[in-house]
Amino acid sequence: MSSVAAPEPRPVRFGILGCATIARKMARAMLLAPGVAVAAVGSRSEEKARLFATDNGLPAAGLRLHGTYEALLDDPDVDAVYIPLPTSLHVRWATAAAARGKHLLLEKPTALCAADLDAILATCDAAGVQFMDSTMWMHHPRTAKMRDLINGKDAMGDIKVINSVFSFRGNEDFLQNDIRVKPDLDALGALGDVGWYCIRAILWAVDYELPKTVIALRYPVKNQAGVLLDCGATLYWADGKTATFNCSFLTNLTMDITLIGTNGTLHVTDFVIPYQEKSAEFSLASKSEELDNGWDPLPNKHVVMTDLPQEALMVQEFARLLQNIRDSGSKPEGKWPAITRKTQVVLDAVKASIDKGSEPVEVVN
Amino acid sequence: MSSVAAPEPRPVRFGILGCATIARKMARAMLLAPGVAVAAVGSRSEEKARLFATDNGLPAAGLRLHGTYEALLDDPDVDAVYIPLPTSLHVRWATAAAARGKHLLLEKPTALCAADLDAILATCDAAGVQFMDSTMWMHHPRTAKMRDLINGKDAMGDIKVINSVFSFRGNEDFLQNDIRVKPDLDALGALGDVGWYCIRAILWAVDYELPKTVIALRYPVKNQAGVLLDCGATLYWADGKTATFNCSFLTNLTMDITLIGTNGTLHVTDFVIPYQEKSAEFSLASKSEELDNGWDPLPNKHVVMTDLPQEALMVQEFARLLQNIRDSGSKPEGKWPAITRKTQVVLDAVKASIDKGSEPVEVVN
Repeated sequence: MSSVAAPEPRPVRFGILGCATIARKMARAMLLAPGVAVAAVGSRSEEKARLFATDNGLPAAGLRLHGTYEALLDDPDVDAVYIPLPTSLHVRWATAAAARGKHLLLEKPTALCAADLDAILATCDAAGVQFMDSTMWMHHPRTAKMRDLINGKDAMGDIKVINSVFSFRGNEDFLQNDIRVKPDLDALGALGDVGWYCIRAILWAVDYELPKTVIALRYPVKNQAGVLLDCGATLYWADGKTATFNCSFLTNLTMDITLIGTNGTLHVTDFVIPYQEKSAEFSLASKSEELDNGWDPLPNKHVVMTDLPQEALMVQEFARLLQNIRDSGSKPEGKWPAITRKTQVVLDAVKASIDKGSEPVEVVN
Repeated sequence: MSSVAAPEPRPVRFGILGCATIARKMARAMLLAPGVAVAAVGSRSEEKARLFATDNGLPAAGLRLHGTYEALLDDPDVDAVYIPLPTSLHVRWATAAAARGKHLLLEKPTALCAADLDAILATCDAAGVQFMDSTMWMHHPRTAKMRDLINGKDAMGDIKVINSVFSFRGNEDFLQNDIRVKPDLDALGALGDVGWYCIRAILWAVDYELPKTVIALRYPVKNQAGVLLDCGATLYWADGKTATFNCSFLTNLTMDITLIGTNGTLHVTDFVIPYQEKSAEFSLASKSEELDNGWDPLPNKHVVMTDLPQEALMVQEFARLLQNIRDSGSKPEGKWPAITRKTQVVLDAVKASIDKGSEPVEVVN
């Protein structure tokens, strides 16, 4: 007896458009993910592209280094583009990429506002290319495990309260010079950078049902240029669900999701980036009762292992969708742009409420 | 060589005024705490008092069973009264007890409003008796350990965000019949019962600095009689600190405090009643940084052991203060009534904001 292995599908060829810090992590992910090749790097100079390639150990064989973003988009041997540029440049370069038929893995926040995102998504739609935002924790198997427990209903019951925090303490250099505090680059500041994750986590928890109303927390902190350094909001659903988030560049590294349902309570304290790469935990207390001398049952600690880091799993999933489109005539997966859009719509509403001094803002899809 | 042990101080003689469920736990605490004796039980009938004494294993020798609350207060061999009556009865019986020179350990919420509490505290003051509210977790050594870390400043830095949740899911019987959902008994409902702890935890975290403004979360849930079953609020300090709490009789057992400072993040998920009686944990991440593949350093789990449960430690501390007053001429410890009053003042402001449809309410001391 003999067996013939199915041929490996041809790898998806990525172009990296811009050499931001986060692109370093993604370059590593592309090297780790099966079915993926880094075909090209585009930067504002060929020299910067070369430096990036060397620094990140990208194999030189077959790698094209482009000295302009345009050149990378014109590269016919690039299937998909990863764009880690400052947010203000997204609408221009993401639409340009999609218009050239490149599938699009776009850093978050995906746009300065939902209208800009809609321009990007419309171009993707017209070109028949896959869109996905680069929200890595969505692809960790821990996230899937929690989703299963939530969907099973029994462990959590109906989720009523969601609280999320994402903060890190930027040092002086960050607070002076990082693109995330610059009004012409990442005008959404902490709300766009860390708040994005909180909003996504909240929407994820309620299976992407949009809240009806958002009200920003009062007294957001802005820098002298008016960019948000610290803010938050409470989100209200018509059926009484409530979520609150805090996001900040000014307080200690914190990555919390707390879900409270009628039957269960789930805690994750490292949801964006797990404490350790190969295993991640969450805690679930389900139907616990308070006895005179403690809780019964005690909360369960769940540990979820992964061989590949979450960013490699994201790249792998993106590549899988692209292979389906290329090799099986599948359509782009609509779930990802839909989730992105809802996140951006809520983010817009929070921003509007902040701008209106914490007045309630209705969420309009 | 021989040594002569110092004589044990004469025990503090407690009277238990009312046989509520929570009094069972406290009877046990009084049996466990050194320096304390249960001298009398007062209920609406002598038979109920006897049943309570038997059920809770109170030694019959020397125990007086009183068939009215008045009779217990008139008992000259009672030094201190523990009052677990419904909140609406507190002002009457707490002032009556203090006026007769009985030291006062009062269940929370201590009063329906700060004005009622002030009447109680004024009577205590005039009579020179000790006042303490029965907020047990304050006396757990874990609380002291966390306090030390906060006060040390380095581990936590300046605390900027405090989030707290206390909820349990009341069953149908609870939601129909418990005194905590009855407008004539515990009119503050979930806010008074579980919200009390959240407010206390928040104030504790900021060393009892009162917030400037509170704004209730929208859409509180009330029962048909108008008693709160689920609510929350955000508290704002003048210097930018923010706290949010959720409290509920409708969701799964949850007891969270999260503190986020400029240097550290502290999580406790069983702050009101530890998961287990003899040891309690909290987690502290201090000055962690996000690396490409995880956090550095990882959060520290702190474990704090205790031989006595927190309610016995509370009774012991209360007895210690009373012995100092009795044997050393000390004055009553002013810290406890001051903390109680601040908790009640914030609770009043939250209630006022709820009643005004989530308008901001200034906190007036």
